Amino acid sequence: MTLSTVTLQDRFEQLRSNKIFETFVILVIVISALMIGAKTYPIPTGVAQVLRMLDIGITLFFLAEIIIRMIAEKNLKRFFTKGWNIFDFLIVTASMIPVDDSEVALLGRLLRVFRVLRLVSIIPELRILMNAFVTAIPRMGYVSLLMFIIFYIYAAMGSMFFHEINRELWGNITISMLTLFRIATFEDWTDVMYETMAVHPLSWSFYISFIFIVAFVFLNMMIGIVLETLQREHEQFSRETGEGEAGEVHRIEARTLEMSKRLMNMEETLKRMSEQKSK
Amino acid sequence: MTLSTVTLQDRFEQLRSNKIFETFVILVIVISALMIGAKTYPIPTGVAQVLRMLDIGITLFFLAEIIIRMIAEKNLKRFFTKGWNIFDFLIVTASMIPVDDSEVALLGRLLRVFRVLRLVSIIPELRILMNAFVTAIPRMGYVSLLMFIIFYIYAAMGSMFFHEINRELWGNITISMLTLFRIATFEDWTDVMYETMAVHPLSWSFYISFIFIVAFVFLNMMIGIVLETLQREHEQFSRETGEGEAGEVHRIEARTLEMSKRLMNMEETLKRMSEQKSK
Amino acid sequence: MTLSTVTLQDRFEQLRSNKIFETFVILVIVISALMIGAKTYPIPTGVAQVLRMLDIGITLFFLAEIIIRMIAEKNLKRFFTKGWNIFDFLIVTASMIPVDDSEVALLGRLLRVFRVLRLVSIIPELRILMNAFVTAIPRMGYVSLLMFIIFYIYAAMGSMFFHEINRELWGNITISMLTLFRIATFEDWTDVMYETMAVHPLSWSFYISFIFIVAFVFLNMMIGIVLETLQREHEQFSRETGEGEAGEVHRIEARTLEMSKRLMNMEETLKRMSEQKSK
Amino acid sequence: MTLSTVTLQDRFEQLRSNKIFETFVILVIVISALMIGAKTYPIPTGVAQVLRMLDIGITLFFLAEIIIRMIAEKNLKRFFTKGWNIFDFLIVTASMIPVDDSEVALLGRLLRVFRVLRLVSIIPELRILMNAFVTAIPRMGYVSLLMFIIFYIYAAMGSMFFHEINRELWGNITISMLTLFRIATFEDWTDVMYETMAVHPLSWSFYISFIFIVAFVFLNMMIGIVLETLQREHEQFSRETGEGEAGEVHRIEARTLEMSKRLMNMEETLKRMSEQKSK
Repeated sequence: MTLSTVTLQDRFEQLRSNKIFETFVILVIVISALMIGAKTYPIPTGVAQVLRMLDIGITLFFLAEIIIRMIAEKNLKRFFTKGWNIFDFLIVTASMIPVDDSEVALLGRLLRVFRVLRLVSIIPELRILMNAFVTAIPRMGYVSLLMFIIFYIYAAMGSMFFHEINRELWGNITISMLTLFRIATFEDWTDVMYETMAVHPLSWSFYISFIFIVAFVFLNMMIGIVLETLQREHEQFSRETGEGEAGEVHRIEARTLEMSKRLMNMEETLKRMSEQKSK
Repeated sequence: MTLSTVTLQDRFEQLRSNKIFETFVILVIVISALMIGAKTYPIPTGVAQVLRMLDIGITLFFLAEIIIRMIAEKNLKRFFTKGWNIFDFLIVTASMIPVDDSEVALLGRLLRVFRVLRLVSIIPELRILMNAFVTAIPRMGYVSLLMFIIFYIYAAMGSMFFHEINRELWGNITISMLTLFRIATFEDWTDVMYETMAVHPLSWSFYISFIFIVAFVFLNMMIGIVLETLQREHEQFSRETGEGEAGEVHRIEARTLEMSKRLMNMEETLKRMSEQKSK
Repeated sequence: MTLSTVTLQDRFEQLRSNKIFETFVILVIVISALMIGAKTYPIPTGVAQVLRMLDIGITLFFLAEIIIRMIAEKNLKRFFTKGWNIFDFLIVTASMIPVDDSEVALLGRLLRVFRVLRLVSIIPELRILMNAFVTAIPRMGYVSLLMFIIFYIYAAMGSMFFHEINRELWGNITISMLTLFRIATFEDWTDVMYETMAVHPLSWSFYISFIFIVAFVFLNMMIGIVLETLQREHEQFSRETGEGEAGEVHRIEARTLEMSKRLMNMEETLKRMSEQKSK
Repeated sequence: MTLSTVTLQDRFEQLRSNKIFETFVILVIVISALMIGAKTYPIPTGVAQVLRMLDIGITLFFLAEIIIRMIAEKNLKRFFTKGWNIFDFLIVTASMIPVDDSEVALLGRLLRVFRVLRLVSIIPELRILMNAFVTAIPRMGYVSLLMFIIFYIYAAMGSMFFHEINRELWGNITISMLTLFRIATFEDWTDVMYETMAVHPLSWSFYISFIFIVAFVFLNMMIGIVLETLQREHEQFSRETGEGEAGEVHRIEARTLEMSKRLMNMEETLKRMSEQKSK
């Protein structure tokens, strides 16, 4: 029996890496995505019936697909070490919760929306892009922290000085931070400013200093990411292909090392010859 | 007769590459563009008459010009292999459709507007720029796909949660995507947010997470293009002129290779000499 | 007694550089920050009492901490040479002013807000970031001056031509500069333009030329910072690790210098040998 | 007499390059700028009298200063070959037109505003910045032309389809281009879109395609400038100081050339020695 399991496993592994099967999975995800879109339009009951059937079909297909992948992976533990597998597993199992009453129905529909993200987990190029985004987050951690501190201080000041003027915008520190985010996007920020300038005529300095600092921090954050990305890409490029300038430099480096050794040998030989002659 | 055709062809080819003829074509296109602009102003009937005559003249001139270019090109098949030739051919032939009733008249006028694009096809520098734009599109294909998926998911969620609040903004997934594009440009996005926050107080997280993700994706897309453009331009620059740092490195590379060979020869000679001596 | 002071000093120095003590200071700053946030919400009198006690506790703790750091630093003069120490000292002493009547109370609360900035002075990574920001300011000094001149000229013109149209926006040069800053952020700038275009139909050229110039200056400012940051970071990177392309070039430089010397020696030897032979 | 003129010329030349004189000129320009600002505020008649006197004084001082510079420059022709001199001359002479009636008074005040630009012509660092801006303009000429063509085509289409809907925004091609510029800055662009979508439901594609194309062209324009600036700065840096990576590469290049020659000589010598031996 162990033997037959192994063959089943091998078959599933073949199936998983099959190009046609993969394309079919992508197709099902796209259909699932289109269904989610279709449901936002008013639909006749007949079509709704068909959609419900299709939805069950898709759910079952996704279940089958993930089971195939779990069996194909020789070790179940190894399956769950990959972040994308856990993500797929959660999406698939969660969308199997029966959706009867309206409250849970919304949750069920929400989970079906996240199924579209399976497109990211299945297309390698998108997965690489997504990984790049996720790995970039910690790199800008301290800049984000600094930005948060700036927002917090300005929000505390804003709420201290202006909360009597407009409670909707400056009522407490949370609302103030939202208002400041709005100002950072330049969204009707002058309306906010003119309102407080009517009471505190010098409050323009609060807004303009905030805009300058935030724009500056954001700029540095951007540059930081650009720099890191540039260096990583550049290194990878020169490592893989020896073609660019970096590749040429690398070759020169190796060659000069070799030449240097050769020269040392030659110098030794010459010295010996010269000494032999003098003798 | 074949002989006379050949001479005609040669003459046309000379005419086509004639600098004065080219300038004249550009002039006609500019006049055509100005006419399009003039027609958006109220014009007296007398002038309108003149404009109509001029329009017929321009159409006939463009027809003549494209025929000249078709004959000048030895092979008609080769003429149609170039994208810009196809573009010119379509614009010229399409604008010859007689425009009588008002419906088709609008189409005719629209085609005349696209004649301005012939300026791009005739000025080499603009053609290079336009080609650069077109070739850049596939390079950012996967990033665009990822961005579309993010828009789609947020639009599905938005339409799910908010479609009861404002059907004009969140009625279905298409309208929701348009609303999200508006939010991505920061255009009165707080009005949209405050409206939904009145019903769902935590919906600010929906908007702020969306803005952060989109800004982030867009940033990476930008960096991607910058990087690629930088590398391409840099390579082309160093290939054409051997002047910059890359050019120097290239020369050093060639020179060290030659020096390395020379050293090997010398070592050989020295070894021989040393051996001869020991004998 | 001098001996005992020295030991106390050493102890304090140990305490200051103690990781646990540092973490505790950070914790107190965070609590202080949360308290500032909490005070913007309506709070029952009981909690307010607790907060007041906590505030006194934090003030005293900060006082103790700065005294410890002053003693730990062998020389009081050296303590005040560091900008961050002066900053901490000012924040701590200023927040000890008793806050009784409402006017000074606001000032006292404001100083407590700036305590959050102590987070920047205590976390090394944030201090580095902040220093980078501060050192970047003079680098863009002349660009800022040029930008200010452009704003001033446009503000003078704006106030000259439009002050009869809307005194709220163009009343005097200060208000005009604020209005221009608003236009530079694209905040409802067309409303401002349409208002003046009703009187001066050509005033759109004023706005569009301003937007073009400012966007251009800002762009150059941005590029300037990017460039400088790039070069500094790159140099530092190649200096610290000899790994990148710059590191390889540096090694090649040293090696070719050494090879060149060796060659000179060899040439000398060869010449001598050749001359001996001819003799 | 020629002798005394020469000495006067020399004296003026000394005066012109005198640091204190230069600082004084800057001071006068700043006072002139402050006066322009002061005049935008309501001023009592007494102060107005003083300002008028001061204005005459400044005008005369500027006249004296430019005459000094003209005499200091040995050749009057050479004086007018420098763009900044022509600029200064025009500003100074133009502001001497007597300002009596209100119409010309406005022109006179306008010219006094441009006096502030003399600050740019006198401070070398600002002059360098300004020159950089001016030289950058032709570099982005073709991109600007392409952008203009795109604006023109969209404006023609917009005015064709929407001029019945809102004559204020789409009345003719000039107004349409202004509206498109507004859309490019994201200023209330959705209001414009929703208005036309009420008549043409698919007109959102017009706006979104326009925003995408313009953002893309603008991005490339920006990259183009960044690239050019980067290369120019980098080259200049490596030319002036031989310190950076480019400097090292340059030195390696020279050294390898010298080593190559030396090797050739040595090979020659060795060959000769080897041949002598065989004989």
